[in-house]
Amino acid sequence: MDLTEKTLNKQTIYKGKIIEVDVDEVQLPNGKTSKREIVNHTGAVAVCALTNENKVVFVKQYRKPIEQVLLEIPAGKLEKGEEPKSAALRELEEETGYKANSLELIADIYTSPGFANEKIAIYFTDDLVKGEVHLDPDEFVEQVELSLDEINDLVQNHKIEDAKTLIALQHVLSHYNHSK
Amino acid sequence: MDLTEKTLNKQTIYKGKIIEVDVDEVQLPNGKTSKREIVNHTGAVAVCALTNENKVVFVKQYRKPIEQVLLEIPAGKLEKGEEPKSAALRELEEETGYKANSLELIADIYTSPGFANEKIAIYFTDDLVKGEVHLDPDEFVEQVELSLDEINDLVQNHKIEDAKTLIALQHVLSHYNHSK
Repeated sequence: MDLTEKTLNKQTIYKGKIIEVDVDEVQLPNGKTSKREIVNHTGAVAVCALTNENKVVFVKQYRKPIEQVLLEIPAGKLEKGEEPKSAALRELEEETGYKANSLELIADIYTSPGFANEKIAIYFTDDLVKGEVHLDPDEFVEQVELSLDEINDLVQNHKIEDAKTLIALQHVLSHYNHSK
Repeated sequence: MDLTEKTLNKQTIYKGKIIEVDVDEVQLPNGKTSKREIVNHTGAVAVCALTNENKVVFVKQYRKPIEQVLLEIPAGKLEKGEEPKSAALRELEEETGYKANSLELIADIYTSPGFANEKIAIYFTDDLVKGEVHLDPDEFVEQVELSLDEINDLVQNHKIEDAKTLIALQHVLSHYNHSK
């Protein structure tokens, strides 16, 4: 069966800085019509960076939509026309001070395909040089480094609450030895 | 440092069926003000179900925001006042026909905390009884069952594009033996 939904009409409800919201009228495979609410996003990148001391570099950041501080791997949205790998190197250095000499793609995933088109490319690196953090004046992020044992405990106890971060950590835990 | 952003003003831009969109004016930790675009969602559940033949049960579904058919584990949004475990049992049975006798929580994650408050509880079960699929008349979903070897290939080759599905599959691959 062809599952495609044909767009009959598109209405843009909101054009913001980070998102645009459309409401599409679609034709379903059975010929009936329905509405789809769609959040458009330019896409993002994230980097799981393992230091020479076998620690993963995290950032703690207040996330207004959930009104809490979240433990995440460094990430950010793509700037216009920016290549994902360049964006990943830039975000890692801005938020943590680490420069990566190489990046390996772990996953390229849609975060909420039911209502949003955001796609995040998640990279891994263990090839780092430490430099200076240089956040924007209005950006408030704290750096944290955790060992693989600490990370394993957080994952097992469901304390990692961010999807991209959990994907990256599951990858690292399955590829690198830890004591438990 | 207190990273909290205080809400100074909230404007609701859109109230839809699946999402609501707010634009909040916030006070940053340095006292300056900024805007936050926020997509409100009731939350969702997903189930990774392993059959007696050691296959994982998937659904293929057209996702309008990304205009493609996506391979996902069964999932759906919470109905008003619904307990996540009940919702997970309901969605699994509706979309695949399988009834689960028990569910284990794998992860409880925010999908896009930068702009949305959607949280998904992801469950695992290998305790299934096969029954009948009963989709809504306007729901178009195809069922697929894949072996752990097939799943390992998909994960290694970055063919799993849905965040919740990748989290569930990484969990299963790290806990169950497969031949590679």
